[in-house]
Amino acid sequence: MITLEKIHAAKRRISSYIYETPVIRLNGLDHLLGCHVYIKAENMQKTNSFKIRGALNKMLSMPLEQLQKGVVAASSGNHGKGVAYAAKLLNSKATIVLPDSAPTIKVEGIRALGAEVVQCKLAERHVVTEKLSRDHGYCIIHPYDDYDIMAGQGTAGLEILAQLPDVNTIVIPIGGGGLISGIATAVKSISPHIRIIGVEPAVISRYGKSFEAGERLLLKEQKSLADALLTLQPGERNFPIVQQLVDEVVSVDEALIHRGMKTLLSEGKIIAEPSSSIGIGAALQGILPISKNEKVCFLISGGNVELQQ
Amino acid sequence: MITLEKIHAAKRRISSYIYETPVIRLNGLDHLLGCHVYIKAENMQKTNSFKIRGALNKMLSMPLEQLQKGVVAASSGNHGKGVAYAAKLLNSKATIVLPDSAPTIKVEGIRALGAEVVQCKLAERHVVTEKLSRDHGYCIIHPYDDYDIMAGQGTAGLEILAQLPDVNTIVIPIGGGGLISGIATAVKSISPHIRIIGVEPAVISRYGKSFEAGERLLLKEQKSLADALLTLQPGERNFPIVQQLVDEVVSVDEALIHRGMKTLLSEGKIIAEPSSSIGIGAALQGILPISKNEKVCFLISGGNVELQQ
Repeated sequence: MITLEKIHAAKRRISSYIYETPVIRLNGLDHLLGCHVYIKAENMQKTNSFKIRGALNKMLSMPLEQLQKGVVAASSGNHGKGVAYAAKLLNSKATIVLPDSAPTIKVEGIRALGAEVVQCKLAERHVVTEKLSRDHGYCIIHPYDDYDIMAGQGTAGLEILAQLPDVNTIVIPIGGGGLISGIATAVKSISPHIRIIGVEPAVISRYGKSFEAGERLLLKEQKSLADALLTLQPGERNFPIVQQLVDEVVSVDEALIHRGMKTLLSEGKIIAEPSSSIGIGAALQGILPISKNEKVCFLISGGNVELQQ
Repeated sequence: MITLEKIHAAKRRISSYIYETPVIRLNGLDHLLGCHVYIKAENMQKTNSFKIRGALNKMLSMPLEQLQKGVVAASSGNHGKGVAYAAKLLNSKATIVLPDSAPTIKVEGIRALGAEVVQCKLAERHVVTEKLSRDHGYCIIHPYDDYDIMAGQGTAGLEILAQLPDVNTIVIPIGGGGLISGIATAVKSISPHIRIIGVEPAVISRYGKSFEAGERLLLKEQKSLADALLTLQPGERNFPIVQQLVDEVVSVDEALIHRGMKTLLSEGKIIAEPSSSIGIGAALQGILPISKNEKVCFLISGGNVELQQ
């Protein structure tokens, strides 16, 4: 279970290791998005994404003996980087299972943090992860379907409440549902009137479709600009939390995800991943239930994009 | 003359037309720059640079009759955009004198704000500007050598003091000296212990060289990445103010200006002009007299860079 108390405990556990990222007022976007625009800049977090919060909370909650045996995670992106960073910090050993197709820069980035990289076919990564866990006694660090992970991500919600107490609406990208589960629990426990809106790519709206069906659907693999939001099925532990606490889940077209990122770059002067800009895209698409005088905080989940300079 | 009272008056005059830009904590840069890093994000200002502050203060201080005759400014960059924007806002008419070499995007951007564009040879722009002023009665809006302009730019200093009252050092790019004159006057009048450091390109260190010589030197034209800081001579009205109030002026190598911009992009996730990143470059070069526990606010003067996406 995840509770406000567990999120407070997570905050005490991880706060000396992470950044309190800024909430930034982006005046220049107001007329484009139709609200008072704020961002919670987790693209400026350590490892450049929020994932470090959950990874650290999980690993700091483990018995030391288990931590010393090592951890394993399947992820080609931000979760892998977060786990590798946390393992280095806590003198554990991380093995990150990456698909063969992972770009060299990500492989090298994770290796540079001291983690071992195992590559396999994309479809086999969970089997490989479980085998590594069985063979070596590594603890699997799931990217979202875990209460300690959710509690860690929820600390971003506590920060938003402290930094922008009169926020009206918080807009959060959804993949498996770890981040939004944590933030919604924190925010709704303290200020139930603050609206929480989830945003997922229209091409793979696993939450929207599952809500319609009344159960967790497993969707087919898709491509999206929002490469961190490609999870095929809502997390088992996340689904009921999102169902209960999130006010609305909207889905955004690819063209708007692209426009969201461009707008954040050209008007906001902020670099974010496409997956992070999806909320901005939703506002541009006009599908967020927000109004002109509302303070809306867009959670910018990560900033790991390659820059050509 | 420029006084604190004139800067307060400028703030009252312009504040409903501009943004109070955020001061942003950039934790991720601390270990690279050797201090607690904050930026004053004027790249997020209207017209994406601080220049709108001075332009608006100047034009709102003019007799209405003069404003209605129109204004003229020589600038291929941010000052031209600021003047064009202010003229549109105040129902005046702006003519911006641009060099033949100005990139189409800048010409179009200024035209899009409703300003008339006159192009001529770079060396002739001041002659052309003065002729336009004489022929049509346009008031010349100087980019820096004007007390109303300085007072307008100084409002950014008042904001920094309110947003980060315990700042230790403020680092400001120097071209002609308008911005630093205004901010130094505001800051030193209120909190004389706060250090003000000016930063200029080493290839054209008109302030550093003029201080050595004891008089305003006219340097030869140079190229620099910091294309907004190419002024050949300190402003006549600015020079004594900078001499009196600024604690130190340092000059930064081209390679470090480039690294400053890249660092702000890749680690800070912030898009700024090279001219704006020069202070970050100075810190990377290790030439700022700052220490680890100091709060240092880098003024990011503009964000008008072309993005290739």
